[in-house]
Amino acid sequence: MEGKANGPSENQAGRSVSGPTNPMVTPLLNDLYQFTMAYAYWKAGKHDERAVFDLYFRKNPFGGEYTIFAGLEECIRFIANFKLTEEEITFVRDSLPGSCEDGFFDYLRGINCSDVEVHAITEGSVVFPKVPLLRVEGPVAVVQLLETPFVNLINYASLVTTNAARHRFVAGKSKMLLEFGLRRAQGPDGGIGASKYCYIGGFDATSNVAAGKLFGIPLRGTHSHAFVSSFMSPDEIIEKSLKSSDGSHTSEDFVSLVQTWLSKIQWSKSLHGIFGETNQSELAAFISYALAFPNNFLALVDTYDVMRSGVPNFCAVALALNDLGYKAVGIRLDSGDLAYLSCEARKFFRTIEKEFGVPGFEKMSITASNDLNEETLDALNKQPFLFFEMKGHEVDAFGIGTYLVTCYAQAALGCVFKLVEINKQPRIKLSEDVSKVSIPCKKRSYRLYGKEGYPLVDIMTGENEPPPKVGERILCRHPFNESKRAYVVPQKVEELLKCYWPGSSGGDYPMVFGDVQCLNKRREDLPTLKDTRERCIKQLEQMRPDHMRRLNPTPYKVSVSAKLYDFIHFLWLNEAPVGELQ
Amino acid sequence: MEGKANGPSENQAGRSVSGPTNPMVTPLLNDLYQFTMAYAYWKAGKHDERAVFDLYFRKNPFGGEYTIFAGLEECIRFIANFKLTEEEITFVRDSLPGSCEDGFFDYLRGINCSDVEVHAITEGSVVFPKVPLLRVEGPVAVVQLLETPFVNLINYASLVTTNAARHRFVAGKSKMLLEFGLRRAQGPDGGIGASKYCYIGGFDATSNVAAGKLFGIPLRGTHSHAFVSSFMSPDEIIEKSLKSSDGSHTSEDFVSLVQTWLSKIQWSKSLHGIFGETNQSELAAFISYALAFPNNFLALVDTYDVMRSGVPNFCAVALALNDLGYKAVGIRLDSGDLAYLSCEARKFFRTIEKEFGVPGFEKMSITASNDLNEETLDALNKQPFLFFEMKGHEVDAFGIGTYLVTCYAQAALGCVFKLVEINKQPRIKLSEDVSKVSIPCKKRSYRLYGKEGYPLVDIMTGENEPPPKVGERILCRHPFNESKRAYVVPQKVEELLKCYWPGSSGGDYPMVFGDVQCLNKRREDLPTLKDTRERCIKQLEQMRPDHMRRLNPTPYKVSVSAKLYDFIHFLWLNEAPVGELQ
Repeated sequence: MEGKANGPSENQAGRSVSGPTNPMVTPLLNDLYQFTMAYAYWKAGKHDERAVFDLYFRKNPFGGEYTIFAGLEECIRFIANFKLTEEEITFVRDSLPGSCEDGFFDYLRGINCSDVEVHAITEGSVVFPKVPLLRVEGPVAVVQLLETPFVNLINYASLVTTNAARHRFVAGKSKMLLEFGLRRAQGPDGGIGASKYCYIGGFDATSNVAAGKLFGIPLRGTHSHAFVSSFMSPDEIIEKSLKSSDGSHTSEDFVSLVQTWLSKIQWSKSLHGIFGETNQSELAAFISYALAFPNNFLALVDTYDVMRSGVPNFCAVALALNDLGYKAVGIRLDSGDLAYLSCEARKFFRTIEKEFGVPGFEKMSITASNDLNEETLDALNKQPFLFFEMKGHEVDAFGIGTYLVTCYAQAALGCVFKLVEINKQPRIKLSEDVSKVSIPCKKRSYRLYGKEGYPLVDIMTGENEPPPKVGERILCRHPFNESKRAYVVPQKVEELLKCYWPGSSGGDYPMVFGDVQCLNKRREDLPTLKDTRERCIKQLEQMRPDHMRRLNPTPYKVSVSAKLYDFIHFLWLNEAPVGELQ
Repeated sequence: MEGKANGPSENQAGRSVSGPTNPMVTPLLNDLYQFTMAYAYWKAGKHDERAVFDLYFRKNPFGGEYTIFAGLEECIRFIANFKLTEEEITFVRDSLPGSCEDGFFDYLRGINCSDVEVHAITEGSVVFPKVPLLRVEGPVAVVQLLETPFVNLINYASLVTTNAARHRFVAGKSKMLLEFGLRRAQGPDGGIGASKYCYIGGFDATSNVAAGKLFGIPLRGTHSHAFVSSFMSPDEIIEKSLKSSDGSHTSEDFVSLVQTWLSKIQWSKSLHGIFGETNQSELAAFISYALAFPNNFLALVDTYDVMRSGVPNFCAVALALNDLGYKAVGIRLDSGDLAYLSCEARKFFRTIEKEFGVPGFEKMSITASNDLNEETLDALNKQPFLFFEMKGHEVDAFGIGTYLVTCYAQAALGCVFKLVEINKQPRIKLSEDVSKVSIPCKKRSYRLYGKEGYPLVDIMTGENEPPPKVGERILCRHPFNESKRAYVVPQKVEELLKCYWPGSSGGDYPMVFGDVQCLNKRREDLPTLKDTRERCIKQLEQMRPDHMRRLNPTPYKVSVSAKLYDFIHFLWLNEAPVGELQ
């Protein structure tokens, strides 16, 4: 269904942008007050006044000092196709007071985003508090209607991407990370979004088939405990034959072959006494799974008892497969002490390799997947070394669900959308809490890099200030703390905001966005998912390590130019009411 | 779009069930392993074996002792329309190993849920750990394909409904509760789901227009800080006239009328000296909003300074409206000390009422909406009384967003889906953690009520045990703790599981679910959203108060019959491997 409703619909007149991934993302996915305000703007004749809004967040999540920006593509898809249907207009009319004039609904009927400009940081970038992720400019009433959907589409996307990146950071580069969160996600597209954004944040694959289909993310999965317990014993297996990998011969009774191996293992010199009779329902399930997927045998080994049943049963099936030229993939652990069990399983594999001369058996893959999160991953990696030759754990791949996709450690990112200019007049939002005061003016922002190639500071300037230049000394000021300032001589200057939606304001060739034809030359192409993922991984690698630490990371500096600083404080004094002390 | 794709499509052949609210809920919204298992079942010739699965959770969320069950309707909509499209089958084929046989994909093409039976507790009920919310019975391969979507659809729905109910509990019955969470929700239908389920849990309205349209939930909303700061001064207001409420006369200059009132307030006996010049951009915004919505004037008063600017500006506009026969609605506070500011605002209103003789002005509604959650609501209600005649706060309505919809205090509920019987053979899933051992057998469950009308205990029995009878003594046992047991003489017995999806197994008249025609007489109708909401509110009122306490609530007892207890432990011993001590 999503294919038909939202698939890319190339248009001969130019490039086109498909609708949002979730067809429920419509102009009505909005707070009612955006419509009441639109009416009040319209009634005051103010609806077409040109306004500039900044979308930003105030604090990095998860106690860290960085965030990954994500969700931009969905925002662009949304505005490219922004148009109220007659049915939607009727509903808005029914939801507003009866006194609202008809002319307003004609106005709503006519609006689209051809007169809106969106500048944004590239999706997948490392970003920081207060620096606008998006700068949205256009008729005030229309831009207000973008607030709620934009914030919704960016908040969770950026939060879960950041969470995934943090999991990758503690897991290290060499581990396989699998996102298994669909069933615990906050609703269906909480799940689909999680799969997409965890992939951007550095995960390798997902269990979510719909996300695989929509985004081309690699899929992973084998079987559950229910599969294991759905079998009673190997006696119930009817079709017992398995052809060898090269097709040269057939084992007529694969079940017996497995059973022979199981008793060889049990009575082998080094393993005798480790286990008694293994669980027969589990053995039957493993044999059946191997018969179905002889090239992809990965078994969940903790339904009854990992070391007394699961691992021996797995090894017997893997050795039987080996006789036929197949290489088993490995095991999955879903309960218990994962560090300990993975080491025990690895020892068992090593013994099998030696005892039965099966090269590579020791290297069998071990996946772990029991309520893992950033902390438990970190703790696992810090397990003391048990023996000289052994690591603290032997897990090769982590399947992570609940804590990853629901961002359990902090379930929300607080993106806001603030008016910073209208009719060329800068605007400020005051608050008793300084961290909530907005930074006024239509702005530009730059990332300044130091000698060692690390980003040093982000700086915001007024729109018409000359940009910082490489090699030139520039004063960077904390926006609200007078005493915090520093001179920086950048070795590289990167402008952060790029035009991702030019409206119809400029350019030299036609493009079609939804129904809207635009003329522009500057629009940035939306990168592919793979490119966004690579950007994210590369940006994280470029950060100075002390900003990335899990504990007590160094804050990255965000600043304003001296000129902007002065203006902020001029405007602040101007707008704040003067008290009357008595 | 959702209307077309998912609107109810009545069918002349009988009742029909529409598809899921979110069109992204398809059979591919699934973990890959459900498909790999389906293949392995099919390959083993086991796919049609009749299996029974229980869907349940293990622990109540938010440190409480109760949960509200929600999400059932979406599950029924899903199975009623369960069918893989050709495109989906092609994708599954591409995602599985190339060695999978064609016959399996023909099998997938043919499956639907006409052979599945779903018994469930009624949506909106108070529920407890371990007691099945759903019992799903059918061909094992098909039922496995329901696991991930069902758990996804129920986990968040039940979690956020419970969260809403807890917010209602601390807020008390008399307060208006508004859900304002769309922008912070975990994705678009995190927002839509939140609005629906918070309404079930006892909220009165939402800001989410799409949810209003989809579910008929009352909508609320006025204006934001941006609206206030988008104005510069009252000079820019061009159309200044306002007709009186009864149409009998017109104020040609409403702006001047407001300004006159503002100076009257400022120089009034009791209010003189409280404020100096108010913010003119705010005054202009309030006047414009009142001109647009003279009958619905509710102003956000904290853009610059609540008591020095927002409240006086609001009162001036409200008094001017009063002159023309309109009654202003009230104010919204979105920052600062809400208890203090609401009391100060109430005092201000009272003074205006007395000083200017405007009856009812004191009762102006006060809405608060700044990062509220269950704890802050509770704290607000426990504010010490400041004066004899004054409550600890004066808030009439709470707008709650982030913490409510993301379930910030606990972002996931851990529903699981466990095989309890296959081919009439009871199955158990063991674990080193006793709380993770599943309760085997196809079961029935009952809620037993005591003399005072409160529920006393839930009890699970084997399917064919005689049900507990009113007035008869019955032994209720803790499923895993030998020593915990009690005799109960119920005054009322309620069977918890009802048939919401009968498959094609019985009955006497035809019904059409999606494309599937079913014969059945027993199917429970899906209640309306309003009925579900009322059920939830009523069920919560029926609970014994000590189970509902925020701090240290008494656990509600969940038990099994003596016969089921014995069987669980027989099966456990049977399946667990016997260790070999050396």
